[in-house]
Amino acid sequence: MTSGKQLFSTLADGILTVEILETNYSDPTGNQVLVKMEAAPINPSDLALLTGAADLENAEYSDGKFVASMPEPFYSAQKGRHGLRLPVGNEGAGTVVAAGEDEAAQALIGQRVACVPGSAYSQYCVVDASMCLPLGDISSEDGASAFVNPMTALSFAETARAEGHNAIIHTAAASNLGQMLIRICQEDDIALVNIVRKPEHVELLSNMGAKHVVNSSDEDFADQLRGAIDSTGAYLGFDPIGGGQTVDSCFRAMEQVAVKYMDEYSRYGSNQQKKMYIYGRLDMGPTILTPAYGFGWTLSGWLLFPFLQKAGTETAARMRQRVLSGLTSTFASSYKSKVTLEEMLTKEAVTDYRLMKTGEKYLVTPQE
Amino acid sequence: MTSGKQLFSTLADGILTVEILETNYSDPTGNQVLVKMEAAPINPSDLALLTGAADLENAEYSDGKFVASMPEPFYSAQKGRHGLRLPVGNEGAGTVVAAGEDEAAQALIGQRVACVPGSAYSQYCVVDASMCLPLGDISSEDGASAFVNPMTALSFAETARAEGHNAIIHTAAASNLGQMLIRICQEDDIALVNIVRKPEHVELLSNMGAKHVVNSSDEDFADQLRGAIDSTGAYLGFDPIGGGQTVDSCFRAMEQVAVKYMDEYSRYGSNQQKKMYIYGRLDMGPTILTPAYGFGWTLSGWLLFPFLQKAGTETAARMRQRVLSGLTSTFASSYKSKVTLEEMLTKEAVTDYRLMKTGEKYLVTPQE
Repeated sequence: MTSGKQLFSTLADGILTVEILETNYSDPTGNQVLVKMEAAPINPSDLALLTGAADLENAEYSDGKFVASMPEPFYSAQKGRHGLRLPVGNEGAGTVVAAGEDEAAQALIGQRVACVPGSAYSQYCVVDASMCLPLGDISSEDGASAFVNPMTALSFAETARAEGHNAIIHTAAASNLGQMLIRICQEDDIALVNIVRKPEHVELLSNMGAKHVVNSSDEDFADQLRGAIDSTGAYLGFDPIGGGQTVDSCFRAMEQVAVKYMDEYSRYGSNQQKKMYIYGRLDMGPTILTPAYGFGWTLSGWLLFPFLQKAGTETAARMRQRVLSGLTSTFASSYKSKVTLEEMLTKEAVTDYRLMKTGEKYLVTPQE
Repeated sequence: MTSGKQLFSTLADGILTVEILETNYSDPTGNQVLVKMEAAPINPSDLALLTGAADLENAEYSDGKFVASMPEPFYSAQKGRHGLRLPVGNEGAGTVVAAGEDEAAQALIGQRVACVPGSAYSQYCVVDASMCLPLGDISSEDGASAFVNPMTALSFAETARAEGHNAIIHTAAASNLGQMLIRICQEDDIALVNIVRKPEHVELLSNMGAKHVVNSSDEDFADQLRGAIDSTGAYLGFDPIGGGQTVDSCFRAMEQVAVKYMDEYSRYGSNQQKKMYIYGRLDMGPTILTPAYGFGWTLSGWLLFPFLQKAGTETAARMRQRVLSGLTSTFASSYKSKVTLEEMLTKEAVTDYRLMKTGEKYLVTPQE
């Protein structure tokens, strides 16, 4: 039996405790492999378990541990996890050091793989061989973010094609994922409307060759957005913000453009179907939808795993292959800081990465 | 050429003018028929053009006319109709008195029909024969509401079946439409969760045989709703309110029930897909969605005509046939008051029907 250090998150009695503990990993059986984890990114999707809305300013920090109070309504909203000691870390990469008896598992021994264990902030992980992406010559650091962002961004292009759209709106578009999406849409000839909120992000994305970048902080944002929708025909959008009126702004602009092309007034609005997906919750406030765009709209939550399940193994395999061949180009991630398991729980690190600033991603290196 | 009285609604310079004018109707050609209108209901969907958010208390009322100011933001929100003189009245029934040269049109001469002209508050309407529903022995009053409510309620059952659901949540369920839906669901063996907001409506619907009626004004509303969802498996809902947190309450309750049946905690919520449709705007305030039910949900606007178009002519014809055979039973409407074209524009009438009180529907009789 292998043992090592692993990060756990426990929410109980209004208190969030995140700590590094010594753990015994079960031996891999059947199609499972044991991966010695070498690199794991901190994605926004990890923060739900890692920090949530905890009071990190006034938390108690000690070696490999922090203890923070979790304010209401956030404490009660997570009733399902009260008292549970949960592993954290969606994805990462490392080397397969042991395997179950199945052929596919055995074949991976000694190989570097990317994987999605849900417990990546750990020195070892047990995962199914079928969910491993062999990295070949690519380093664990380059392969650590091979799954969540690349597959999500690719899924947006897949979704657009599957739903008959040739253009996409993306909000919070300066993110790592947003930059990937720009490259994907360039390769796939999909028009992309990028919404950012800072002038330097307009410049960043424009320098990448993005044709339509609109700044939600500008006074004429609504005008900019209508113009971009009008010239691209983007009636499908993806939003990682969730709260507030970002989705509402998109629906409103879509409808205003569509109405321009109507021959006759209709009290019900245009017949143009408008669709938005919320795929993240950077803003935990409520989503506000105003009655300003008739009834021809659909808003959905979006998650990667249900999407991949619905898309089927063939599509998922094709997408994985594309990610692998572009891991250091189209799908490259960059990191602001590298931290060890212990360092990721210091006040300095925690209060910094929970801000989810554009271009300031952390990478965890569990072996150091 | 036939002439007669017709109601028109004009919004211009912040003022809503609704008036009865003498009009010349064009002669029917091709497949068109001229219907002498005998009865037309005032549905909530008519109020958007008829009153909207106009200041009806302080309006100027004269014979066959009222002039009211339209407050912001409602005036600007209807930019598309500024200065247009629009007919009003989705549906009604009457007798075909003239027809174009096509056989189908000619065959309707002398028959009583229900129709959806969009200009039903008028002594005559020109409509396409293919959109007429011959009423046979049924009176125009009984047939006046044969389209909007019956077809909408039937569409909910069609939608449930098409999307693989066996149970429905309906909000504002004490309405005329809600009562039809109860009868349809009884006939079709679909479980129905009725949300109402008054104890007398709980009684009303229970007396009709509704098994699940929950009162949103009760303190334990959330408990009642969870209980009803748990025993029916209703993860699909239809909401005519739109604004506020009705949809949010439904999603929240659906998720809380679904989470009970999960083996393992997931930060992303349950895998149970939750779906709500907004098909009306009884509340013009914003729709508020809180981040309390993960990402497995979809909210859509819903309109009858796009639905029927998508469903296809065969389905629509089958639905129409069912409505016709149940017009005085399953699909019966009842009215609080009958008014002439002129009477419908008095202060007493306008300020009453715009309240859209349950069970207090108006019927317009344009020939009187």
